[in-house]
Amino acid sequence: MKPFFHVQTLAEVQARMADLAPLAAEAVPLAAAGGRTLAADVTAPRDLPGFARATMDGYAVRGRDTFGAGETAPGFVTLAGEVVMGQAPTLVLAPGQCARIGTGGMLPAGADAVIPVEHTRPMDERTVELTRAVAPGANVLGPRDEAAAGQVMLARGARLRPQDVGLLAVLGVARPQVVQRPRAAIVSTGDEVVPVGAEPAPGQVRDVNTYTLQTLVREAGGEPVVLGLVGDDPARLRAAVDEARAACDLTLLSGGSSVGQRDLTAEVFLGCPGAELLVHGVAVAPGKPFIWARAGARQLLGLPGQVASCLVAFHLFVEPMIERLLGREARSFTRFGTVAARLARNLPKAPGREEYVRVRLGRDFAGVVAEPVFGKSGLLATLIQGHGLVRVPLEREGLDQGETVTVLVFP
Amino acid sequence: MKPFFHVQTLAEVQARMADLAPLAAEAVPLAAAGGRTLAADVTAPRDLPGFARATMDGYAVRGRDTFGAGETAPGFVTLAGEVVMGQAPTLVLAPGQCARIGTGGMLPAGADAVIPVEHTRPMDERTVELTRAVAPGANVLGPRDEAAAGQVMLARGARLRPQDVGLLAVLGVARPQVVQRPRAAIVSTGDEVVPVGAEPAPGQVRDVNTYTLQTLVREAGGEPVVLGLVGDDPARLRAAVDEARAACDLTLLSGGSSVGQRDLTAEVFLGCPGAELLVHGVAVAPGKPFIWARAGARQLLGLPGQVASCLVAFHLFVEPMIERLLGREARSFTRFGTVAARLARNLPKAPGREEYVRVRLGRDFAGVVAEPVFGKSGLLATLIQGHGLVRVPLEREGLDQGETVTVLVFP
Repeated sequence: MKPFFHVQTLAEVQARMADLAPLAAEAVPLAAAGGRTLAADVTAPRDLPGFARATMDGYAVRGRDTFGAGETAPGFVTLAGEVVMGQAPTLVLAPGQCARIGTGGMLPAGADAVIPVEHTRPMDERTVELTRAVAPGANVLGPRDEAAAGQVMLARGARLRPQDVGLLAVLGVARPQVVQRPRAAIVSTGDEVVPVGAEPAPGQVRDVNTYTLQTLVREAGGEPVVLGLVGDDPARLRAAVDEARAACDLTLLSGGSSVGQRDLTAEVFLGCPGAELLVHGVAVAPGKPFIWARAGARQLLGLPGQVASCLVAFHLFVEPMIERLLGREARSFTRFGTVAARLARNLPKAPGREEYVRVRLGRDFAGVVAEPVFGKSGLLATLIQGHGLVRVPLEREGLDQGETVTVLVFP
Repeated sequence: MKPFFHVQTLAEVQARMADLAPLAAEAVPLAAAGGRTLAADVTAPRDLPGFARATMDGYAVRGRDTFGAGETAPGFVTLAGEVVMGQAPTLVLAPGQCARIGTGGMLPAGADAVIPVEHTRPMDERTVELTRAVAPGANVLGPRDEAAAGQVMLARGARLRPQDVGLLAVLGVARPQVVQRPRAAIVSTGDEVVPVGAEPAPGQVRDVNTYTLQTLVREAGGEPVVLGLVGDDPARLRAAVDEARAACDLTLLSGGSSVGQRDLTAEVFLGCPGAELLVHGVAVAPGKPFIWARAGARQLLGLPGQVASCLVAFHLFVEPMIERLLGREARSFTRFGTVAARLARNLPKAPGREEYVRVRLGRDFAGVVAEPVFGKSGLLATLIQGHGLVRVPLEREGLDQGETVTVLVFP
């Protein structure tokens, strides 16, 4: 039951995620679509807005009737009527005529431009003086400017930002098809772990990973399902994994970083019908004890118990999986900003692995400085005080003081 | 009723937000605290973890008993027992003794370090060989390493990230006090605007701003309250603003960018009891027609109707207000990343205002390039295609091709 498994590189592990297929689609109300991921391309059903609109308050004109008009030699047009907002105007502009129009109004037939009101002066009830010329098309949104029929407006896999939700509204997509949120079951192990509401006795600590992981899953676009604390009892662990597997795309089991517990986690995962062990140990710190087994379409994941390690492991392993299951391109740290900074001191690294080191950002006379926050990996304080992470690549022996590094800034 | 009001600069308008006080606090379950804002400093109620813990699997030892041990000259210690996870060990290490311990286990009295299992070999049932020395404190988390009693661990105004939620769990804060979400009523005006589910007739367009603003408010940390379409009828507008004011901290009225409608918006706002007009026009593009009135603690805001302008105006004016009401430091564009890029072409600017120009990011042989996306401000496509905004400051006549600019990248 104790499989031999060699430690893989981070790149190898992430490459294994390539065949994770997006989950099924579901329709959601447009009001709830922000942050969700499009399940299919969205095309324009017809030309939009479908008619020419004014983008300024003023007068609809034929551009050529204004040519030569200026402050010193004004032009004159005849007022033929007014465009009522929200209605198709029935009037047709003859040469030399204009019609009053508001922003968003539909241009009458014969008009091809709008002259803004600040470049006009009413002379009498029938005549408008123009103090500027406008070219045909000026201050007008064309009938196909927003969208041309059949044009792909938003692509499958796009995370819907406010402007994208707006575009769906333009297109009349009241219930867009989005990818279902990956459901991630969260199970905490460890006989020393007590609920947050409890007062830990000596030797005990409160359950931190349940809350950290819950927040991480939600921010990554997944739906957390908390199954709670199971201690280190194999039978309870097995029952929790069975329950998780039945309902959730991902099972996140945190804790069990010790060798014996890791073996137990792998054993419980392999006990699931059809389960296959893909990863047991990764050449990365933090994140080394990561375990990944697959049972059908269910991903079973063992994460480090130490909270700072657990958080980095989430970003390295779980977030890219969630992105794959959402049909987004899967890259680590996509929600992290980046800042170029000078390293404040040498960062040595153990051979044969890559490392992610917490840093604080500061400034000196020469620019932005990244100061490593040294501290034990179990300490949350290093994450709270740190602004982000610096990667020390596998092939380097370390990074040098003064070297320019890219800091992945915590979202 | 038509007040004279001079156009203000963006800096003047944002300075006026300085006296917006944070909203009241509410307690929320820790599981729902991610993304919320702390209403008060959080201090450690006692030293945490409160006892010394192992950070590796191995043997608890006295560091001095291991001095001199190495691969060629191993040391030896006597096994005195085992630490059970989650329990305070009763055994006391005498000199020369060790105790088996797992990651997270509590160090027995007398021990001050943990020697990792990979640097040990069991000789017999009572004797363990050590192939490395460890200093006192090695692989141990001290009793106050996580927190010292009374220490401020998280400051008021902090947006709770996953690691912060984790820290609250460490401290046993099961229901943190967070600032209430600012409620923002969303009202769309315009006789030409029809609901998203309707097929617009010629001259009509679908309601876009309701959905865009709703998503923006939520992502900024507020709670949107949609009051719907009210057309351009003053009585319905007045009724909607009254309803909004009764229930919401912010009233967002979009549309009414035309001069007549802006006057109507200002008039309706000023008709509210105790209302005072603070801003009527800002020297910024897009965002020029912004209106801000205050009635007691309620902020009444008139935003441009054109969707791309409305979105930028939200980031310029509404998001900093929401941040103030949350007790965060109010800065525009805080959720935007930044990228330094070379400008691909000259960007001329109208005098007397600052401008925010949409750009696409690309790469060439020399680095990152920002290419302005020219397009009419009513067009969402310029926002969808653009990656972010470049600011052209008030005092500049424009920006030059080849100049390095900071691009505010859409979140």
